[in-house]
Amino acid sequence: MTAIAPIDRASGQDLSFLASPRYAPLFETTEAAVVLVAPDLAETPGKVRARVIVDKPHEALLALLPRLYVPPVRIAGIHPTAKVGRDVRLAEGVTVEAYVVIGDGAVIGEGSWLESHVVVGRDVVIGRDSRLHPGVVLYPGARLGDRVQIHSGARIGSDGFGYVYRNGAHEKIPHVGRCVIENDVEIGANTTIDRGSIDDTVIGAGTKIDNLDMVAHTGRIGRLCLLMAQVGIAGSARVEDGCILAGQVGVSGHITIGRGARLAAQAGVFGSIPAGETWSGYPARPHREALRAQAAMFKLPSLIRALERLVERDDKR
Amino acid sequence: MTAIAPIDRASGQDLSFLASPRYAPLFETTEAAVVLVAPDLAETPGKVRARVIVDKPHEALLALLPRLYVPPVRIAGIHPTAKVGRDVRLAEGVTVEAYVVIGDGAVIGEGSWLESHVVVGRDVVIGRDSRLHPGVVLYPGARLGDRVQIHSGARIGSDGFGYVYRNGAHEKIPHVGRCVIENDVEIGANTTIDRGSIDDTVIGAGTKIDNLDMVAHTGRIGRLCLLMAQVGIAGSARVEDGCILAGQVGVSGHITIGRGARLAAQAGVFGSIPAGETWSGYPARPHREALRAQAAMFKLPSLIRALERLVERDDKR
Amino acid sequence: MTAIAPIDRASGQDLSFLASPRYAPLFETTEAAVVLVAPDLAETPGKVRARVIVDKPHEALLALLPRLYVPPVRIAGIHPTAKVGRDVRLAEGVTVEAYVVIGDGAVIGEGSWLESHVVVGRDVVIGRDSRLHPGVVLYPGARLGDRVQIHSGARIGSDGFGYVYRNGAHEKIPHVGRCVIENDVEIGANTTIDRGSIDDTVIGAGTKIDNLDMVAHTGRIGRLCLLMAQVGIAGSARVEDGCILAGQVGVSGHITIGRGARLAAQAGVFGSIPAGETWSGYPARPHREALRAQAAMFKLPSLIRALERLVERDDKR
Repeated sequence: MTAIAPIDRASGQDLSFLASPRYAPLFETTEAAVVLVAPDLAETPGKVRARVIVDKPHEALLALLPRLYVPPVRIAGIHPTAKVGRDVRLAEGVTVEAYVVIGDGAVIGEGSWLESHVVVGRDVVIGRDSRLHPGVVLYPGARLGDRVQIHSGARIGSDGFGYVYRNGAHEKIPHVGRCVIENDVEIGANTTIDRGSIDDTVIGAGTKIDNLDMVAHTGRIGRLCLLMAQVGIAGSARVEDGCILAGQVGVSGHITIGRGARLAAQAGVFGSIPAGETWSGYPARPHREALRAQAAMFKLPSLIRALERLVERDDKR
Repeated sequence: MTAIAPIDRASGQDLSFLASPRYAPLFETTEAAVVLVAPDLAETPGKVRARVIVDKPHEALLALLPRLYVPPVRIAGIHPTAKVGRDVRLAEGVTVEAYVVIGDGAVIGEGSWLESHVVVGRDVVIGRDSRLHPGVVLYPGARLGDRVQIHSGARIGSDGFGYVYRNGAHEKIPHVGRCVIENDVEIGANTTIDRGSIDDTVIGAGTKIDNLDMVAHTGRIGRLCLLMAQVGIAGSARVEDGCILAGQVGVSGHITIGRGARLAAQAGVFGSIPAGETWSGYPARPHREALRAQAAMFKLPSLIRALERLVERDDKR
Repeated sequence: MTAIAPIDRASGQDLSFLASPRYAPLFETTEAAVVLVAPDLAETPGKVRARVIVDKPHEALLALLPRLYVPPVRIAGIHPTAKVGRDVRLAEGVTVEAYVVIGDGAVIGEGSWLESHVVVGRDVVIGRDSRLHPGVVLYPGARLGDRVQIHSGARIGSDGFGYVYRNGAHEKIPHVGRCVIENDVEIGANTTIDRGSIDDTVIGAGTKIDNLDMVAHTGRIGRLCLLMAQVGIAGSARVEDGCILAGQVGVSGHITIGRGARLAAQAGVFGSIPAGETWSGYPARPHREALRAQAAMFKLPSLIRALERLVERDDKR
């Protein structure tokens, strides 16, 4: 077997799975070599060559994936179209693909992989075995650890959004802090992480960031956090280790999300959150409190007239 | 006439329009060749060479646009700087502009147009007459139909955000599903659509997606949907045919938005929505219910003191 | 002194600062040449070579930054890999870096700087001393003023999201309006600004726009506005001069945000807002009113049972 595929498009070398009766009719026509089948579907008729009965085919598959999945082949070498600046140190075994541009003084560690059109700013440092997908831009001041993976179109170390209003104009504050991405971080497509103003912006080791997220200047994200898509972290906010932020969450500047806290999707967080708690809603509150307030709010319309009458009558007394 | 322009900057070959008395003074100075004029402004003084009285100048203009608008000229051919991998099949009449990179085994259909800096991953399939604007990246596993249009900076088929927490680390789950974009889909600038985990991510035929949207792994968007800007669809969510999602809507994972449903801007959807309904708010509810709850909520502050007193007095009895 | 750095990583040529007792222990080991110290920390022991006592070290630093900060060196010239179309007018002293693509008829003013991989569409006009960071794409129809700065991955002048439903399909409305970016505007990474449908989209002089923002077709943003990250402005909305929109704000189409108004983070704005006011929440209301409604809403759960009983009893009377 060479791959995993859904049952309707599995070929003769593929492993597939049947977990829902909805797809049982496809069992007659699939060409899959082996199919993992849920116990209650074990007797599904079909000409499948081999069926393996497992409790949870989907989970079994996830466990098999890393064994079957062939990671993409990387060939070491510098493509002739790559433009490499002065005093750049490229370690052994790096891959630099077509149309990559590397600024003066950059340092790139062993086994790192810069896919096509990547732009690496002046003096940027990249550790070992890191991978930048096509079109990633690292601004000057970015510093990546080992085994970092950055997806296509992400912008790392862009200028922070800082101005002083003076003489009738928003005057730009130069940003000189770094943007530090520690080991084993993965950053999603088109995400932007600004450099620090004076102190650094830091993404802690092992943290995973989804697509279209924004971490503003001097944000500090701890270790092993998960930030789902379209999350925004304002300037100088601190997210401690092991936090989980669901999609479209917004976190205000200069506050702290305590260790291991969880924020539900679209939560709007305007104050610090204690460690270990789950908050939700706008403005964010402890999840149970938010749910109770929402439930009460949706009961209110049917009561409001009667309540107004009660209050009115009471006032007249 | 060669173009359409607002009345203040129309030149002697342009068609323009006058629909609001606010712009009537410009009628004296405009150089427009022809002006469409609303009936109530028909007598506006001015030296305009030709005026055409129409009920709704703006709508008339929209109808004229496709006739007057000259689509950009495409010249077939492969730019010498394009890097084309092994076993790539380019149909006749394709256009591949400067600095395009096409991975091994890709297939590109007749009349398709890859603008500058586009990156096409290994084994990607693109149908006929599709157009990729500058800097689009198609990851391996992407599969585009005919007449698909993808705007600048969109990332199609990026890895899904899936990890298993094991041995003190978030271990990445390989993503091997495809990212299927059916015929006549248009995708906006900087939007990201992840590939499926095992099953495919699918964007149905004729659906239009705006800028900065996110469709997560194994999302299924039906046919003829409209997704406005900054919408986020979490993993394995299903949006059925003909739905309209307004800006900044968030849809949770593993739920279904029924056929033809509409979601108001910023709606936060945490459960499935029946076909044909309009929902809004956070958490999303049927639109009327949401409006009534909001109205009641904004009446509440003026009542709350009196209500607290009533309840307190009642408790003492 | 050549740079500013946090106290823990300042080298012998750096200026640093000590504003919090938390960092006082680092005073023993820092190599900083000069440290700005808050009055209450003036006596902190340490081998620092020079200490300057100032009231607010952080603010003093911000004031010093523009003097110490060495802007990146720009070398005029056209990189041999740049592809320049026909009838392009490049003023003296422009910088065009590697792999830039400039369409036919474009005009680029004196001292402007196109970093690597920038794509400039046909007939685009760029003023003087503007800077486009790597990978910026200007669609045809874009028109930039002087001293405009656009960050990496921003898409300026992309097609608006406009369709007419006809014959079972969403038919695209051609967009022929321009996308006008006036003088001294700065636009953040991966932000998208669509061109107008017929009239122009305009970003007023001196306005600053953060990362991942979206301004839809024919939006009009006034002068000296600040739009924080992930803000979305729907079609034909008008934001007057001097407005401040915090992160993740959404503004509906065809409404007006009055001069100098402020919108709190995540506000969902469905109607026009008077000049000078501060609004927040969903749906957005004047900030005080929104706060009072939220406070009442969170008091409601503890009252709702008693209120239901009161109303029920009253009904029976």
